[in-house]
Amino acid sequence: MTFPQTDRTKLKRLPKRGHFDRETVYSILDEGFICHVGFTVDGQPFVIPTGYARAGDKLYIHGSQASRMLRSLAGEIDACATVTIVDGLVLARSAFHHSMNYRSVLILGRASLVDDPVEKYDALLALSEHIVRGRWADVREPTEQEMVQTTVLKLPIEEASAKIRTGPPLDDEEDYALPIWAGVVPLKLVAGEPVKDPRLTADVPVPEYAAHYKRPITS
Amino acid sequence: MTFPQTDRTKLKRLPKRGHFDRETVYSILDEGFICHVGFTVDGQPFVIPTGYARAGDKLYIHGSQASRMLRSLAGEIDACATVTIVDGLVLARSAFHHSMNYRSVLILGRASLVDDPVEKYDALLALSEHIVRGRWADVREPTEQEMVQTTVLKLPIEEASAKIRTGPPLDDEEDYALPIWAGVVPLKLVAGEPVKDPRLTADVPVPEYAAHYKRPITS
Repeated sequence: MTFPQTDRTKLKRLPKRGHFDRETVYSILDEGFICHVGFTVDGQPFVIPTGYARAGDKLYIHGSQASRMLRSLAGEIDACATVTIVDGLVLARSAFHHSMNYRSVLILGRASLVDDPVEKYDALLALSEHIVRGRWADVREPTEQEMVQTTVLKLPIEEASAKIRTGPPLDDEEDYALPIWAGVVPLKLVAGEPVKDPRLTADVPVPEYAAHYKRPITS
Repeated sequence: MTFPQTDRTKLKRLPKRGHFDRETVYSILDEGFICHVGFTVDGQPFVIPTGYARAGDKLYIHGSQASRMLRSLAGEIDACATVTIVDGLVLARSAFHHSMNYRSVLILGRASLVDDPVEKYDALLALSEHIVRGRWADVREPTEQEMVQTTVLKLPIEEASAKIRTGPPLDDEEDYALPIWAGVVPLKLVAGEPVKDPRLTADVPVPEYAAHYKRPITS
């Protein structure tokens, strides 16, 4: 299945970097866990980072009932959610051809409130598992009151596109002879040694998902 | 110096996470190198990732003359640039109190085209040095034609705020007794071994800035 290329998601420049197949779009969404959500209030665009989960063809985000972003988005206004994974710095021989390797997804649409309690619970579970798989089984689950204090929104993944750059620099033919180092510096988000809460009194071992955290999560 | 807290940058929720002093805002901007730029076209918000540099009280971005984003922004429309650095996953004893440690900056304003050739050259140099310090001295500099093909925009850093979360989870008092591991999984963008361009023919050594790349860049 592929997403339709609309006037708004079509790549005008470097169209070969554009991908519209569901597999590519989902694989990027499943590796990332932070999206930047854009929405407009009184003519002013705002871009706010937030965690997310993909479940099926929906992107779920959540937060406090009091969040300005969630309250605005719940009005089903036009929005954009962008997920970006930076894979490397591309060092060309010419300043002009420097670039980055990255994978990004842009989703356009309108989010709406998740009201149904079962869908809301499932979305919170999906958010937790998307970010730290295995965590949900260990934690104290949300109370009714906490559920009320939490707002969950869903954004349908219908108008979406991925943009990807990979590989070495592409220099002008005559520049390849220059004695300048060229290549890629790979970049990756890496987890360090877990830092335990100073108030952790019991002798609780570090769970595997925290001790060896990495993305994409595979199990 | 501090940035004014406007209705648009004031934190309505968790105001203790908000920071308006220039030092804090600049330190986040100087560590990051990707911003997510939000702008609205025909009522639809778009959020596009792009590299940036801070030079003084301006944020510079650049790209192809043909870029839809740059062409839109050059019309001096309302925009938002957000920089996010994720520092860790905060694992609380309750699902509800899970969080992330992060530092983010939000800048609201209108970008404008950098026309002056000296400022444009300086901005491209700043962009290059912000992302890979030391690189500019090694590369083949832009030709006149390449300068024409490159669009540079500046966004004044005037209406800006930082949002920061650090430290361990904050659980409800009664949950601290639960035998559940809690703490922080630190996250960091880390550089790997440089991958040389397969077409690198001469025996050019890997420069220090590529061999040991890390952020924030200090020198």
